[in-house]
Amino acid sequence: MSFPLNKQLVDQICTDFGLRNAKELGNASIRQLVGVVSNIEAATGEHFIHMELGSPGLQSERIGIEAEHKALLAGYGSRYPLIYGIPEVKHWGSEFIKAFVNINIPEDCIIPTVGSMQGVYALVRLISQLDPKRNTMLFLDPCFPMQKQQCKVMDMPIEAFDIADYRGDALEHKLEEYLSKGNIISLIFSNPNNPSWMCLSETELRIIGKLCTKYNIIAIEDMAYLDMDFRRQSGRPYEPPYQPSIGHYTNNCVHLISSSKIFSYAGQRGAIVAVNPVLAHRVYPALTQKYGNNGEFLWNFIYVILACLSSGVTHSVQFAMAAMFKAACHGEIDFVNNTREYARRAEQIKTIILRNGFHTVYDLDADNQPVGNGFFFTFGYHDWTGEKMLNKLIYYGVSAISLSSTGAAREGLRGCVSAISEKEYDELDRRLALFNNDFSAS
Amino acid sequence: MSFPLNKQLVDQICTDFGLRNAKELGNASIRQLVGVVSNIEAATGEHFIHMELGSPGLQSERIGIEAEHKALLAGYGSRYPLIYGIPEVKHWGSEFIKAFVNINIPEDCIIPTVGSMQGVYALVRLISQLDPKRNTMLFLDPCFPMQKQQCKVMDMPIEAFDIADYRGDALEHKLEEYLSKGNIISLIFSNPNNPSWMCLSETELRIIGKLCTKYNIIAIEDMAYLDMDFRRQSGRPYEPPYQPSIGHYTNNCVHLISSSKIFSYAGQRGAIVAVNPVLAHRVYPALTQKYGNNGEFLWNFIYVILACLSSGVTHSVQFAMAAMFKAACHGEIDFVNNTREYARRAEQIKTIILRNGFHTVYDLDADNQPVGNGFFFTFGYHDWTGEKMLNKLIYYGVSAISLSSTGAAREGLRGCVSAISEKEYDELDRRLALFNNDFSAS
Repeated sequence: MSFPLNKQLVDQICTDFGLRNAKELGNASIRQLVGVVSNIEAATGEHFIHMELGSPGLQSERIGIEAEHKALLAGYGSRYPLIYGIPEVKHWGSEFIKAFVNINIPEDCIIPTVGSMQGVYALVRLISQLDPKRNTMLFLDPCFPMQKQQCKVMDMPIEAFDIADYRGDALEHKLEEYLSKGNIISLIFSNPNNPSWMCLSETELRIIGKLCTKYNIIAIEDMAYLDMDFRRQSGRPYEPPYQPSIGHYTNNCVHLISSSKIFSYAGQRGAIVAVNPVLAHRVYPALTQKYGNNGEFLWNFIYVILACLSSGVTHSVQFAMAAMFKAACHGEIDFVNNTREYARRAEQIKTIILRNGFHTVYDLDADNQPVGNGFFFTFGYHDWTGEKMLNKLIYYGVSAISLSSTGAAREGLRGCVSAISEKEYDELDRRLALFNNDFSAS
Repeated sequence: MSFPLNKQLVDQICTDFGLRNAKELGNASIRQLVGVVSNIEAATGEHFIHMELGSPGLQSERIGIEAEHKALLAGYGSRYPLIYGIPEVKHWGSEFIKAFVNINIPEDCIIPTVGSMQGVYALVRLISQLDPKRNTMLFLDPCFPMQKQQCKVMDMPIEAFDIADYRGDALEHKLEEYLSKGNIISLIFSNPNNPSWMCLSETELRIIGKLCTKYNIIAIEDMAYLDMDFRRQSGRPYEPPYQPSIGHYTNNCVHLISSSKIFSYAGQRGAIVAVNPVLAHRVYPALTQKYGNNGEFLWNFIYVILACLSSGVTHSVQFAMAAMFKAACHGEIDFVNNTREYARRAEQIKTIILRNGFHTVYDLDADNQPVGNGFFFTFGYHDWTGEKMLNKLIYYGVSAISLSSTGAAREGLRGCVSAISEKEYDELDRRLALFNNDFSAS
């Protein structure tokens, strides 16, 4: 079968999968889309060019793999992991943050989680119970859509706005508008941003931090792509430039660092939550009232929430994370240079996209600088909606996710470069040219 | 320092840990108790005899460890795991249930989870959203207290009764009383029972199954201790006697099988949820309304709930589970014989307990047979409450959990034999004798 694929067949697969119709693809979650595409591949025998799932395209750090095997041979596989984390991951997690973000989070405030997915879920569950008068999460869009799904699953109300049109000082007024209403308890953002790859500037982080302190808002900073703003020459431990962080501007914050992207370790589901010590030890009467304990943020995060989500994090993976954090601190793993491969791929793929009639959607970053090349990029086609693009591209063997699911005010798709190898560039070019040939006049 | 430990010091550690006072120990969760005891050990230099945490005391199955290493070397560590499980774990999970429980759950209804802790959390989260008119979970007590904490964290109402006084046919009337009220959507039990080690008989499972069908109640069957009723000569694949299961008596059920105890693999957090196919494919309008999808139980369990809890289960652990299930089906791992060690320890430890003034609390099983020896046992002291026992035993370097936290109608403690090695028997004897000497007259 060649492209475009048989429309009737593809549509049937979408509805068989559980979507109400093929148009629902635009609203499908990432994992749902992965499922549909996998079924289409099986039915048609055609291999897709996968730009939907942000799975690393590099080899896992070998140091992690060896640490896991050693831990299993030493017998850790049989024993429940410490729910607050093994001492090694607490220690080296703390050092890693010192070395690459230049903030001090003590070891007791470093807690491993089953990926940052569990970290955010657990934080949202806890934060939603802190204050009976404030129950809403504010998203700085565009965002990672699974985090909105998490709030929906937990019935936590959300608000959101696209920050692209409120860069620099303009952010302050816009944020005040939301935070001053009194219903927001927490805000969440990723930096570098998934999906747009925009990066918050120090000015913007200072504004967010200042307002989080002023309105007692807990900032959740997702650092999944730590130090992957490849326009900067970062990545040397204990040396500037460091990863910009909200932690330099407020105490009211939590940082999530995942091993999935920086160490290409997504399969093993390991991350740490680093709670600012001032927030960690704050006491909330609502927690005492509900659970009959000391009401402390950190204590309830560990013993009430995380304990009942999974009884801790896979033992061997904790050892892997500890070993990789340690090696990075010692300069033995140069994760920034390793992942710079994504910037090279993005540059090539953007060229292919542009010459086939597509355009980049989020093209300007803070101070009107061009958005850098990295793990994700955004692309549009004429005045089409993202849903329409996705619904058509699917017949050409190209998958991505709709920006509308990320809360973007702009139309288009998010592409991930990680799964596209050099030998697929020509095929991508060919499929997009076919697509453009079929639709450029429409 | 010898026993009893310095009371002031121990009490201080309890309050420093976050409990309001030492008396709160009786209400502490298992993980909280583990934390307190670990701090007492550090402060006093005395090693406790640990009967609180049900961590396996045997070596992990080597086949699992090797499968993990092989998967990591093959590159699975870098790639996100399939959210619905790798084909191997789905296939061998299904075979395993056929071989040891004699029920047919198709591969697509076998889903890996980060331990059964995540399995139950995810099920409860889903089940609480199925029917706007029914919102309550019924526990067949005594129970694993973390499962009640899960409901509390999710704000799901619970009801419960201790089944020990309603064995056999008496169970039917008692269950009817609860299920006919119309507010119960699901019930949960473990078999063999944690903490009492009672085992539900075929008669009782038939009653529960019949009423689950009659009232459209979803039964959650926790098989953490599958085939560990060592009074029976089970454990030969595809040969009777099989593990008794609710699955023989209703379609309205879900089974949880964890690798933690049967394969001594607790550290790696791997389990499967096996959804009865009739339930799996049932459609719930409330799910469609909330999430805009097909409303199917299984689909929402995977793509809505599990996807946002942890993005799947550690990749290498899925391969370990698949390999261990396969080996058990082929008779290459005799997990029942391996874990029979717990029965031997229980027999010895019960003897020590009894000769020092303690008694067993749940001593009779179905048909007035004595409760078997296994992973857990229950013990009381005179007419003391479990809280009082725990609050005093802590000064003698012995830790366990209070039965009151399990919803037991009877007073006492749950002890786990897994962490007590033969060389600790004499020390346990000595400490309990000291205890009994100090309190026998009180």
